[in-house]
Amino acid sequence: MAKNGKRGLIVGRFQPYHLGHQQAIKNCLKDVNELVIVIGSTDQSYEKENPFTAGERIEMISLALKDEKIFNRCFIVPVADIKEFALWTKRIRSYCPHFDVVYTNNPIVKELFEKDNVSVKKMVSNLKDIDAVKIREMMLNGKDWHKYVPKIVAKYLDKLGAVGRIKAIFMEEQKE
Amino acid sequence: MAKNGKRGLIVGRFQPYHLGHQQAIKNCLKDVNELVIVIGSTDQSYEKENPFTAGERIEMISLALKDEKIFNRCFIVPVADIKEFALWTKRIRSYCPHFDVVYTNNPIVKELFEKDNVSVKKMVSNLKDIDAVKIREMMLNGKDWHKYVPKIVAKYLDKLGAVGRIKAIFMEEQKE
Amino acid sequence: MAKNGKRGLIVGRFQPYHLGHQQAIKNCLKDVNELVIVIGSTDQSYEKENPFTAGERIEMISLALKDEKIFNRCFIVPVADIKEFALWTKRIRSYCPHFDVVYTNNPIVKELFEKDNVSVKKMVSNLKDIDAVKIREMMLNGKDWHKYVPKIVAKYLDKLGAVGRIKAIFMEEQKE
Amino acid sequence: MAKNGKRGLIVGRFQPYHLGHQQAIKNCLKDVNELVIVIGSTDQSYEKENPFTAGERIEMISLALKDEKIFNRCFIVPVADIKEFALWTKRIRSYCPHFDVVYTNNPIVKELFEKDNVSVKKMVSNLKDIDAVKIREMMLNGKDWHKYVPKIVAKYLDKLGAVGRIKAIFMEEQKE
Amino acid sequence: MAKNGKRGLIVGRFQPYHLGHQQAIKNCLKDVNELVIVIGSTDQSYEKENPFTAGERIEMISLALKDEKIFNRCFIVPVADIKEFALWTKRIRSYCPHFDVVYTNNPIVKELFEKDNVSVKKMVSNLKDIDAVKIREMMLNGKDWHKYVPKIVAKYLDKLGAVGRIKAIFMEEQKE
Amino acid sequence: MAKNGKRGLIVGRFQPYHLGHQQAIKNCLKDVNELVIVIGSTDQSYEKENPFTAGERIEMISLALKDEKIFNRCFIVPVADIKEFALWTKRIRSYCPHFDVVYTNNPIVKELFEKDNVSVKKMVSNLKDIDAVKIREMMLNGKDWHKYVPKIVAKYLDKLGAVGRIKAIFMEEQKE
Repeated sequence: MAKNGKRGLIVGRFQPYHLGHQQAIKNCLKDVNELVIVIGSTDQSYEKENPFTAGERIEMISLALKDEKIFNRCFIVPVADIKEFALWTKRIRSYCPHFDVVYTNNPIVKELFEKDNVSVKKMVSNLKDIDAVKIREMMLNGKDWHKYVPKIVAKYLDKLGAVGRIKAIFMEEQKE
Repeated sequence: MAKNGKRGLIVGRFQPYHLGHQQAIKNCLKDVNELVIVIGSTDQSYEKENPFTAGERIEMISLALKDEKIFNRCFIVPVADIKEFALWTKRIRSYCPHFDVVYTNNPIVKELFEKDNVSVKKMVSNLKDIDAVKIREMMLNGKDWHKYVPKIVAKYLDKLGAVGRIKAIFMEEQKE
Repeated sequence: MAKNGKRGLIVGRFQPYHLGHQQAIKNCLKDVNELVIVIGSTDQSYEKENPFTAGERIEMISLALKDEKIFNRCFIVPVADIKEFALWTKRIRSYCPHFDVVYTNNPIVKELFEKDNVSVKKMVSNLKDIDAVKIREMMLNGKDWHKYVPKIVAKYLDKLGAVGRIKAIFMEEQKE
Repeated sequence: MAKNGKRGLIVGRFQPYHLGHQQAIKNCLKDVNELVIVIGSTDQSYEKENPFTAGERIEMISLALKDEKIFNRCFIVPVADIKEFALWTKRIRSYCPHFDVVYTNNPIVKELFEKDNVSVKKMVSNLKDIDAVKIREMMLNGKDWHKYVPKIVAKYLDKLGAVGRIKAIFMEEQKE
Repeated sequence: MAKNGKRGLIVGRFQPYHLGHQQAIKNCLKDVNELVIVIGSTDQSYEKENPFTAGERIEMISLALKDEKIFNRCFIVPVADIKEFALWTKRIRSYCPHFDVVYTNNPIVKELFEKDNVSVKKMVSNLKDIDAVKIREMMLNGKDWHKYVPKIVAKYLDKLGAVGRIKAIFMEEQKE
Repeated sequence: MAKNGKRGLIVGRFQPYHLGHQQAIKNCLKDVNELVIVIGSTDQSYEKENPFTAGERIEMISLALKDEKIFNRCFIVPVADIKEFALWTKRIRSYCPHFDVVYTNNPIVKELFEKDNVSVKKMVSNLKDIDAVKIREMMLNGKDWHKYVPKIVAKYLDKLGAVGRIKAIFMEEQKE
């Protein structure tokens, strides 16, 4: 077995958690035994690009991981943004349990982790069309977004009133 | 008498305070005995969307309320923004004296206060054309904005050099 | 008339507002027409030295000023602390309506305002024995503190359950 | 069965995680199906009262919960402190998945959650002598602390060099 | 000699330091004996408008000043941004050694310093075409930017991999 | 020559800069060609442990370094504190020009830099009795502190009114 007990890390904002995230996580778990899932921008919520709170995102991810029977191989860690981006990888290392490898396709995240002597690999997903920006647009425009997220997450988002919230955020009056 | 000694709350940035704000405040005071007027974004000033300091905004509002003989029925409370928007209503409740009802037309503010079990009503104004964005644009473009704000506020803004400041903020050199 | 329409400023934490504060305010109002009352440390509450929220302190002060018929001569302005103390007087000037003179007995506050070319005078009170630290201790130890605060404030504090809160803050378990 | 699928919440700093924490967690899990474990003060580390990082504390707790086969019934959520304590319960609710009941013996935490209409119960433990303060003192003074923490946590702390770190923090030169 | 031992101050972000900055500095040093060079926005890095860290910018400026034999007449002071812009000039005065005059073409910076009784002069440069925005665009688009910065800075930026970093920052995947 | 063009780094608060600091700096400069002098806690001033602003500390150090003809071999870099101490060495590396070795006697600073793969050496000084805490106490108690700081710094501190400021900070009225 090639994994040797290693632990990986991925970062996302999960606004909302979708099938592309899920496939990436499952691909990582073919490569490592355990995975740290960092939820970024947890200090934002009820805003256009970050409609859901950290707690709601933990709930979504946990529901999906439990459904896939991989919850006990993962650590879900919310991490607030830091304006000094040069410190961000250090904050992640301080907030998370130890990890051996980071999966990312972002070249700056790669550069910053490699400067810290953390090894970095490409994150692989075949579901490149699925994208949280598009899903939020579908919610806003009344299109059917359900098939792009795990069923149990879709159900949770419906119960939460996700569509109503996103519409409310965008309806916000501009008049001062 | 229908008011029953209740206290209401409204939120604005008052950049600057105009007749639309004033009419809304007077409408609220038909419904409640006292009104908390929250000045938002007080941690910003000398910027395009927030040219005036918190202190200057307190001055404008107080001048107008005194002129209307309603100063002693109001509480003017400056509140700094909070990036974690989910905490914002809680900060308002912590910074303000107790209130029974919030007047707002913003659906997210409504949702957040109602989650906290605070009752929310529509804010009514017949002066929907008056808008601080337009007033700042008039100031910038040398048009006559005086009729859109209470006379005593217009006089204060002239003395403050409001037009000059807004032009200076927009003239800011882009060259680095 | 010696006042010449001037406006003064005093700073306090008002944990709680007491008769010493009230006498100082009334003395200032012999010297100036209007007074800005800055509530400091508004970003702290439910702690040993700052048991009451900013909103509760605005309530106490307003009740007392209205009772004394001086509410309409005052501006009550909550101001959050700033760690960079050299910037503090500037923040106060940015958060408050214009003022001509500061009343303080604190030599550092005096030095910092004078560096900003703000004139500073001694704050005069004959009630030097009354002190918020002592009042909080009396509350904690079950002694009678009511006579040291304005009657209307005492009533408000009783309704708020001030004694219970202060006891709860101090009972906080040390065990980790 | 009395649990009815409910979810509880406890808060600790876990500096380090010890048998008292563990017993409290297991007692809560007799009462509720799932438990949110909030790690507080995650923005502090390498200091006398907070020697371990958030990541190290997540590691300790996870090791122990997995060893006890209760990891999949828990959510471990690091939450940074907030100076405005009146907002703290709101931040916890925003950072955590939904919960039905809070277990605490701290009267202020109780008061603040109850103000938010969250139900609060006593946290029960028979191991009241075990205390993180004492454990850190034992580490500093070379006494044997191993028996007060779960075996797997003791092993982790040894590997981490916990004793060396705590000694280094306290050796810190005072000379400026 | 007209200088009378005076000290001036200029502010820039120096992303990167270029010949326009250098000429402005040399012009100031015709007018004053010593110059405080404030590096602004030091709390940002690895971002589109602020690709270089404070440390890298100190390095660039120092290399150039030493090359021009004017390092010992200058103070290079990194200053983090402050959201409350009304406090910004005060922060600069608190972070920098004493100065007598500010050189700026920004009307708001002028207004704020003059409110603090600091004298302000125009910043003179004949190299108005050189602009850090353009240089970053050239780096991004593979054009030759070397002639717009001092030779020693060009060499440093090449060694640092500046072009690669800027490309990486802009390549950042949009997909969530 | 053993230096090989290397650059070192030391950290201090310099409240005030004294002969112990100076000797340590000169000892470092026997070992390396250039030295980065980090001024810590620059976000504090006018307080008991941090009476002087960052700007005043830059002034003191510069005066002394110029007097010793070593100013052009040094970089003076003010760095604000960070509550997350695990990020502090990273912030220092981000704010400072590149350095090869850190001189410190603080075991935690040593541990944190070594975790970042920065080499650390002992800081050597024969003037261990000189200590900023003692100097501030002497200033407060009217004792003669002048001999413990470089002459040019003593003169600067006298002109600044350092003794008066420290007394004022400690005289601060306790009465609320």
